[in-house]
Amino acid sequence: MHHDGSHQDYRRRDRCAGGGTPRLVNCFGKLHKEFHFADFAHAFGFMSSVALIAESMNHHPEWSNVYGKVTIDLTTHDADGITALDLAFAARVERLAAAGLV
Amino acid sequence: MHHDGSHQDYRRRDRCAGGGTPRLVNCFGKLHKEFHFADFAHAFGFMSSVALIAESMNHHPEWSNVYGKVTIDLTTHDADGITALDLAFAARVERLAAAGLV
Amino acid sequence: MHHDGSHQDYRRRDRCAGGGTPRLVNCFGKLHKEFHFADFAHAFGFMSSVALIAESMNHHPEWSNVYGKVTIDLTTHDADGITALDLAFAARVERLAAAGLV
Amino acid sequence: MHHDGSHQDYRRRDRCAGGGTPRLVNCFGKLHKEFHFADFAHAFGFMSSVALIAESMNHHPEWSNVYGKVTIDLTTHDADGITALDLAFAARVERLAAAGLV
Repeated sequence: MHHDGSHQDYRRRDRCAGGGTPRLVNCFGKLHKEFHFADFAHAFGFMSSVALIAESMNHHPEWSNVYGKVTIDLTTHDADGITALDLAFAARVERLAAAGLV
Repeated sequence: MHHDGSHQDYRRRDRCAGGGTPRLVNCFGKLHKEFHFADFAHAFGFMSSVALIAESMNHHPEWSNVYGKVTIDLTTHDADGITALDLAFAARVERLAAAGLV
Repeated sequence: MHHDGSHQDYRRRDRCAGGGTPRLVNCFGKLHKEFHFADFAHAFGFMSSVALIAESMNHHPEWSNVYGKVTIDLTTHDADGITALDLAFAARVERLAAAGLV
Repeated sequence: MHHDGSHQDYRRRDRCAGGGTPRLVNCFGKLHKEFHFADFAHAFGFMSSVALIAESMNHHPEWSNVYGKVTIDLTTHDADGITALDLAFAARVERLAAAGLV
């Protein structure tokens, strides 16, 4: 997280979050999405499910949280970009969110 | 958990789980419910939300889990029975479940 | 959980918990241990780590919690007994506990 | 998170993480620390304990994680700075870390 190369990149990433799509989107080389929950209890429950998915895929997100907001960025460091593994991870997170958690 | 006074109580508690109600029900002196989830990732996400509620109310359930099943029993030891605190806890768990988690 | 065949088994399992060993022990066909923590926050942190291990091994414990106590039972249903998978799981849980969590 | 007012602030915050102290330190108006764990399972177990503390204090951190690294920033938005609540939160997180989790 926070590995943006420049201030300009940093500002541009903020704009990525604006999309109304329910899907993680390519945001400057990472699959990115902000999820919004009613409160911290809902947000952290979601995070726990995502953590289990991450560990089972042995693929770990860059993510952050404050209260009801969870921001996820997925990329594959070894490949220096988005791979099939990131897309598979994103699909599972999207299904979790669609199940009514978000 | 497992504090049943006799084998007979233990068998009767199994029958408590059979109700089709979405609510926790009084089962031999405890508010009781089995929740069923698609898999362990969903179940543990729910448990994490419940854990936060428990800690914020400083009231902790007797609960157990195996894969997608979460069993919760609520009682107030100091009062040796179900109190308003248990009912308030149960209401929050039911709202969480109703939000689509279960 | 709670699948004991009889009241007698149920009482005998309580006695399994008494051992002072830091390891999970064979308790009537399951690798079993009670872990005791200072409070619920420590206990649930431990449970979250165990949950990640479980999901990554695709092998899920029968477990229960009340406040600072976490009880874990491991068995392999398909084999109707303890297998190498249970022993590997137990070893990881023991290492986690030895790291200072318990 | 990511609420840095300028690129310069952003770079300076990176330098805050360098301190070898086990305590959260005032880093540009927030109590800040990076915690490093052996792996994701340990890191997320720690996060779950911190989440319970947060909910029980009704005070929620800005925090992020990638694999074994957990970064925590504490501030009180209503007071626009660090308050006794942040210090109390930090003390509990430090005790948790000192218990051998980190």
